[in-house]
Amino acid sequence: MSYYISVDLGGTNVRVAKVDDFGNILQDLKSPSFALEGADRVTENIMAMIEQIDGLSAAKGIGIGIPGAVDTYNRVITIATNLPGFRGYRLFDKLEAKFHLPTFMDNDANVAALAEALLGAGQGLPIVYYITHSTGIGGGLVIDGKVVSGRRGYAGEIANIIVRDDGQKYNYLNPGAVENEASGTAICRMGQETIGKEITSAADVFAKMRQNDPRAIAIIDRASYYIAKAMAAIAHVCDPHIFVIGGGCANASDLYFPLIADYYKTMVHDLMADIPISKAQLDEPGVIGAAMLVKSHLE
Amino acid sequence: MSYYISVDLGGTNVRVAKVDDFGNILQDLKSPSFALEGADRVTENIMAMIEQIDGLSAAKGIGIGIPGAVDTYNRVITIATNLPGFRGYRLFDKLEAKFHLPTFMDNDANVAALAEALLGAGQGLPIVYYITHSTGIGGGLVIDGKVVSGRRGYAGEIANIIVRDDGQKYNYLNPGAVENEASGTAICRMGQETIGKEITSAADVFAKMRQNDPRAIAIIDRASYYIAKAMAAIAHVCDPHIFVIGGGCANASDLYFPLIADYYKTMVHDLMADIPISKAQLDEPGVIGAAMLVKSHLE
Repeated sequence: MSYYISVDLGGTNVRVAKVDDFGNILQDLKSPSFALEGADRVTENIMAMIEQIDGLSAAKGIGIGIPGAVDTYNRVITIATNLPGFRGYRLFDKLEAKFHLPTFMDNDANVAALAEALLGAGQGLPIVYYITHSTGIGGGLVIDGKVVSGRRGYAGEIANIIVRDDGQKYNYLNPGAVENEASGTAICRMGQETIGKEITSAADVFAKMRQNDPRAIAIIDRASYYIAKAMAAIAHVCDPHIFVIGGGCANASDLYFPLIADYYKTMVHDLMADIPISKAQLDEPGVIGAAMLVKSHLE
Repeated sequence: MSYYISVDLGGTNVRVAKVDDFGNILQDLKSPSFALEGADRVTENIMAMIEQIDGLSAAKGIGIGIPGAVDTYNRVITIATNLPGFRGYRLFDKLEAKFHLPTFMDNDANVAALAEALLGAGQGLPIVYYITHSTGIGGGLVIDGKVVSGRRGYAGEIANIIVRDDGQKYNYLNPGAVENEASGTAICRMGQETIGKEITSAADVFAKMRQNDPRAIAIIDRASYYIAKAMAAIAHVCDPHIFVIGGGCANASDLYFPLIADYYKTMVHDLMADIPISKAQLDEPGVIGAAMLVKSHLE
């Protein structure tokens, strides 16, 4: 049995795990990421954690998922908003030099996509499109078991796809970007606007929808439409064998996946209308996906 | 030197050529396609043409580009509007049985994309996105020298991407689909509406633009905006190393590619803004691409 070292680096916490080919987590270490103390401190902490992995030298390699874009061709982090000092940082090379293990890195949504493609809802399918629907919206394209990262790691940055001509400008994303119209954050915002201050999360809006609150139903219906519109654009680019949707909002899949499917069907060619739209299956796609990154590159 | 048999099948004409690794056309046969006489007649004609190729048995294989979608997994034509009777038709298998050569087929825009990726403007780049801007709009994604055809051959059917919320429904495509807002046909339609009956083609509108006709400038500006909007969606899915634009409209590249680039930059992340947007280089992307389909599958 081969195993891989997985590093799931976030702005707040970092996990280092030992994962086997089947996605079993054999050892799991957690720590604050110390992001505010700079890239070197974050890296030293990760290195110290990796050193605690049993049988480290027999691992096949190290895989890292980060909340940012990774230029996988030049092995450098393009941008990582929640990790100050990591833009241009050569984390790959530092870990490889230290541990003498093949090291790979990609965006956290891309890594989760790979996990779902190899071991989750997309298992066995050639083209898997994964969407994480959480506070933000991210995506990942996996073709024949390999992540498509893009020229500078922006493949899958679907949050910024424009789905509404009269959308407002909320942040660095496009006015009318799908993240601003349909993310958990957007759902919460709309809930606060139309239901009231009692709404503090997207989960609250979904809960109201479950109680048949027409305001909540309208919000989720609209968000579902915008997600479907982004998915239609995605499908016309890569015609995947499956859409897999994960992230916190997907816990309410029974409430809104059928809405997404109904809208999606109206915006694609007939023979694309039956692309399955499935809920993500894995509990730990970030940890497992970072390990699978090594496996996918070495195979 | 290896060579390949290329079949460029259209609704009106068919070409069968012998093409080498460098895209040189060593032999070139043309014929009506006899599309209205049914799939068997079309196939018999193609077979008779292939038999005329010198040194046929030493060819590496047969590659076919068709104006339609191809399910490359199940080796069957999904849809081909201008080729009656070809839906579900097993052209692959018939040719393979007859000539005992490996046979591959894909959509004509996908095949042109492959030609530009391997031997044209995208040569040497890992991810190439090709757009054909002609009477219609088509696309093709090539990653590491392989076409991404999709589950049922609909990858690249970007004509149907919605770029305008208040667009009209003109045909089987979505209201506001980029093809209906920015194709050569759309440019001609808008030219007839705002300039007059003297406009009979997109080329006429481009010619008026060259004479600084403000109505023509406004039409092309708007079409460029919509193309850029579709390109931004595409880039957020696959972050290509280059966009290559071919097709008849691209003959006026000097007039409108700069407009596309300016709009595109406003709709993507900063580090995606400098993706090169290049004019296609090959005169015969369809013929060369069908040959390259064989090469790309066998390598």
